[in-house]
Amino acid sequence: MGATRVTETLVLSLLLLLSGSSATQRKKTRAAPRMPCKQMVFYFHDILYNGENAKNATSAIVGAPAWGNRTILAGQNHFGNVVVFDDPITLDNNLLSIPVGRAQGFYLYDRKDYFTAWLGFSFFFNSTLHRGSITFAGADPLNKTRDISVIGGTGDFFMARGIATLMTDAVEGDVYFRLQVYIKLFECW
Amino acid sequence: MGATRVTETLVLSLLLLLSGSSATQRKKTRAAPRMPCKQMVFYFHDILYNGENAKNATSAIVGAPAWGNRTILAGQNHFGNVVVFDDPITLDNNLLSIPVGRAQGFYLYDRKDYFTAWLGFSFFFNSTLHRGSITFAGADPLNKTRDISVIGGTGDFFMARGIATLMTDAVEGDVYFRLQVYIKLFECW
Amino acid sequence: MGATRVTETLVLSLLLLLSGSSATQRKKTRAAPRMPCKQMVFYFHDILYNGENAKNATSAIVGAPAWGNRTILAGQNHFGNVVVFDDPITLDNNLLSIPVGRAQGFYLYDRKDYFTAWLGFSFFFNSTLHRGSITFAGADPLNKTRDISVIGGTGDFFMARGIATLMTDAVEGDVYFRLQVYIKLFECW
Repeated sequence: MGATRVTETLVLSLLLLLSGSSATQRKKTRAAPRMPCKQMVFYFHDILYNGENAKNATSAIVGAPAWGNRTILAGQNHFGNVVVFDDPITLDNNLLSIPVGRAQGFYLYDRKDYFTAWLGFSFFFNSTLHRGSITFAGADPLNKTRDISVIGGTGDFFMARGIATLMTDAVEGDVYFRLQVYIKLFECW
Repeated sequence: MGATRVTETLVLSLLLLLSGSSATQRKKTRAAPRMPCKQMVFYFHDILYNGENAKNATSAIVGAPAWGNRTILAGQNHFGNVVVFDDPITLDNNLLSIPVGRAQGFYLYDRKDYFTAWLGFSFFFNSTLHRGSITFAGADPLNKTRDISVIGGTGDFFMARGIATLMTDAVEGDVYFRLQVYIKLFECW
Repeated sequence: MGATRVTETLVLSLLLLLSGSSATQRKKTRAAPRMPCKQMVFYFHDILYNGENAKNATSAIVGAPAWGNRTILAGQNHFGNVVVFDDPITLDNNLLSIPVGRAQGFYLYDRKDYFTAWLGFSFFFNSTLHRGSITFAGADPLNKTRDISVIGGTGDFFMARGIATLMTDAVEGDVYFRLQVYIKLFECW
């Protein structure tokens, strides 16, 4: 009898626990601790083509509104400019450090009354440090720090999801900027 | 002996339940109920630059095929036109309502024989209502209603995934359209 | 007493198992088997507009750097060219096979010293075979085979995530290429 009672109690506990487990799986609450399963910090360096720096440029304007062109960023906070880039990724903030990967994709400026951007790009790694890619997308309000989404990954970063906190680490006119990218993955396989 | 038997039975139950739990986690079946963990409806309003509405325009053509230009949408169902936008988001279908956020990103027309589009954009919120972003991507067949993917989010929408059902709520020539966006998140943290 | 002991043991087991379950859910380890929940192979065919093939072309250059145009792919490995496409998807590698869907979106070339690309596109299906969309994004190093991310889906592919292995199956000058796309989904609902 005692054993039967124990069984009942435990089966009930099991069901409760299981339903609890299932619930957290579907609908993760904000109260749950948000600990990244992987964290990394990188820098990347963007040198925009301006008609005179063909050799060093790592990016180029490829789209512009009717009032713009592809050599000089447009007025109205560059609204409508689309830039394609292939930028070196470094472990520190030195442009001359040995790159550990490439940041590849595009950004576009999308606001007339002040600077904001939208980004679609990947970090591509092919070294002993990392092999694979991390893909990012999202609005960039160009605040001091801001978050965009990590939407996927391959290789070492297979099925990655998370966020990346961007910080503009340096700007030199319209030609050079450097971003610090603090990647926090919350889904790692 | 009874206790030992109970133990065995329960350990077996545990393993079965656990494997079941694990299976649903990895491979969610279609039979499972698909209840969104969060639902929201918004509208956004797109006013395309046409050479005469510089002040009110919220979007601009920034890419066009060889046979097009950046002031007038191209023939062949606008195939190849790329549009960058920064559109106000409202809670109802009134363009003049106070915006609760901005829809920012791009769309492109990608079919010659009828209208279809591809979208990459974010809803960006920075108010007491919502703070953070939701990022969308996908093909838009421009049917009466159609679904695109929610691929990520930040802030209040940290790690969001789901779908958004788009409905074109109004069109005025090539200058204005309004979309209703019914967001259904199926992963909430 | 025996029953109490059993209860204690089992509650402990439960907690351990549950925490184990929770851990695998949040942080999937590399040791875990990576079995796709769905696998599919498709081909798609891209015919680039070159000024002379308006009727057959399925894609067009819509963005170019200052040194390029929209009829001929730019020098320096096409760096900066943005191409919008609406390509037929077939089940085999024959361009003339009946399409089962359309590959729609864009690719851009993003490296000056050799070929690399970045892709944002969807497979769009609307037949008895499949109904819905799969959306892809990521860097394409244009190696023999390479992986990009599946970042979302709708309809039959609701909430899909995974990777797609791309293989360039044929190239004819700058006008035609055919990609084999081996889709492996690791999250299916």
